[in-house]
Amino acid sequence: MSSGSEKRSVSYRDAGVDVDAGNRAVEEIREAVRSTYRPEVVGDIGGFGGLFSFAAAREKYRDPILVSGTDGVGTKLKVAFMANRHDTVGIDAVAMCVNDVLAQGAEPLFFLDYLAVGKLAPLQVKEIVSGVAAGCRESGCALIGGETAEMPGFYAPGEYDIAGFCVGVAERDALLPRGVGPGDALVGLPSSGLHSNGFSLVRKIFFDMAGMKVSDFVPALSSTLGDALLEPTRLYPRVVLPLLQGGHGQAKDRLGRVKGVVHVTGGGFRDNIPRALPPGSGARVRLGTWPVPEVFRLIQRLGDVPDPEMYAVFNMGIGMILITDDADAVINDLASRGERAFAIGEVIRGTGVEMN
Amino acid sequence: MSSGSEKRSVSYRDAGVDVDAGNRAVEEIREAVRSTYRPEVVGDIGGFGGLFSFAAAREKYRDPILVSGTDGVGTKLKVAFMANRHDTVGIDAVAMCVNDVLAQGAEPLFFLDYLAVGKLAPLQVKEIVSGVAAGCRESGCALIGGETAEMPGFYAPGEYDIAGFCVGVAERDALLPRGVGPGDALVGLPSSGLHSNGFSLVRKIFFDMAGMKVSDFVPALSSTLGDALLEPTRLYPRVVLPLLQGGHGQAKDRLGRVKGVVHVTGGGFRDNIPRALPPGSGARVRLGTWPVPEVFRLIQRLGDVPDPEMYAVFNMGIGMILITDDADAVINDLASRGERAFAIGEVIRGTGVEMN
Repeated sequence: MSSGSEKRSVSYRDAGVDVDAGNRAVEEIREAVRSTYRPEVVGDIGGFGGLFSFAAAREKYRDPILVSGTDGVGTKLKVAFMANRHDTVGIDAVAMCVNDVLAQGAEPLFFLDYLAVGKLAPLQVKEIVSGVAAGCRESGCALIGGETAEMPGFYAPGEYDIAGFCVGVAERDALLPRGVGPGDALVGLPSSGLHSNGFSLVRKIFFDMAGMKVSDFVPALSSTLGDALLEPTRLYPRVVLPLLQGGHGQAKDRLGRVKGVVHVTGGGFRDNIPRALPPGSGARVRLGTWPVPEVFRLIQRLGDVPDPEMYAVFNMGIGMILITDDADAVINDLASRGERAFAIGEVIRGTGVEMN
Repeated sequence: MSSGSEKRSVSYRDAGVDVDAGNRAVEEIREAVRSTYRPEVVGDIGGFGGLFSFAAAREKYRDPILVSGTDGVGTKLKVAFMANRHDTVGIDAVAMCVNDVLAQGAEPLFFLDYLAVGKLAPLQVKEIVSGVAAGCRESGCALIGGETAEMPGFYAPGEYDIAGFCVGVAERDALLPRGVGPGDALVGLPSSGLHSNGFSLVRKIFFDMAGMKVSDFVPALSSTLGDALLEPTRLYPRVVLPLLQGGHGQAKDRLGRVKGVVHVTGGGFRDNIPRALPPGSGARVRLGTWPVPEVFRLIQRLGDVPDPEMYAVFNMGIGMILITDDADAVINDLASRGERAFAIGEVIRGTGVEMN
């Protein structure tokens, strides 16, 4: 029992944790969170767990497979700290996860975020979570839970880490990849820029080697360096889901059109394309078949980075690759919806990824 | 295109990211991950997303609700760094999530972890993930995915953050809390110690104020300070799930026995008990009805922390509370399985949590 000597007594707040600020942060994000809800969401913010009804999916999918992904934003966050701009990294956290889920042929259903901060600033949390909510709305997935952890002495004041978790669903026999083989075409979808990979290299080149600042206006990029680097990762579900088979018995005519989806994430072309290929198959990517955005050329020039390294680290302007036996049909379908796509190569006998 | 001047060229590895170390880390954790698999797991480590078949649950649950939780370990990690011991924090990450899922009446199904490290050391990653896998096995949930992010300049070498994400399932009409009201009893289940909350205060008191070290042997705790503080968070699923209703049509006789489950997590008794109470109900907790572990007495004495603060930050020896209309039956059921439990109070008309 406490002896009550006020001088020496210490509270959780003295130790740097402000539970009331946490409660205020929850109030600040309530509306953003609700804006993402789908009919399947049960209850409201504040329970021990997030609730999502599987009843509709239970009817839609005969043999449902839950597909889950988790990812963070990496050291792109350091650029957000430098630019003091926090409304985009939440979109990145969502995109990195939902694009992984999509790569397995699944429809994203719901998302949770983990946010660890050095010092809980409710308005900064609101800014970050507004990005998460925007990413969820754009991907059609509900933001049903999250954790905001105040960890003093762990992150510098004003700094934080964020990770996301997404669950989607696919019919078992529509899981991707399926049936990929030599002769299939690679159709590339444009990225929105760097997405959320390679930022340790990016920061070394722009800030350490070239001595640039986030506020520098870069004519080649038609923007400040900070804005160009913080361009949010593109969310592909709305573009790609219509090309995939839906639930049991749906869109049977599309079965086989898209056989694999590659999320060009950490490891770039070199590591990610093989994840969608069966043993004995490799890929040939034809350089020059799509426009490489200026930001990549600038990185390569300033850092004198060899080509193979560029393609092993960055998306080089292609954030997602569809593997299909009918590239024309896929590209036409996308064009009819106003989406650009490029025939960038093909699956070949062999191993690895040839680029020429 | 690169000019090839080797001197100035910079690689991802130069920037502090070692993709090959990442691949080695995946090899190191493969067996631990597989040890957690349940029959529903589809495929193997290495895909873009983790796959879990919902076919069995589709049959077992008429109106299935997916229940998800995410949490981290907080600044308990700092103690792990000080003690250079990394095989327990993974258990904490699992426990913090599965205990939240359990609090909604759900059976944990699968888990994913997010691990962000300053410098990727495959053996350290193996140690951490072996803890995650142990926690998953003990909770009966499959470890189906994870992300290990190398973030140089973000975390100090040897330091890291970890977050977890768990998905469970419950029949809609068995979700908790349900039907809690005045007169119901609170049955407390012992914690294993501090669990993973309040560590900013704990560290301030032991290390800053008392000047102690993790290697100090503390007679009152019969262990070193480090071992006492790092005692993993208790995993409650195996103990509590048998008391809950299972799928549709199962264990009908148990329906109503346990009406609510409180995970005594961040915010302690004060914030968590009300999360399971309907409007107009409060709780009375009778102090002295369970043994408060020595570690809490030591914290209170060294920090001269007032009682209300202790109960608003720590679990004080009770890590989970079952709300029931038949405390004797619940306590006897637990006793028959060798589990201790204490009648610690009751639900009353009013608001908040009285402690006397």
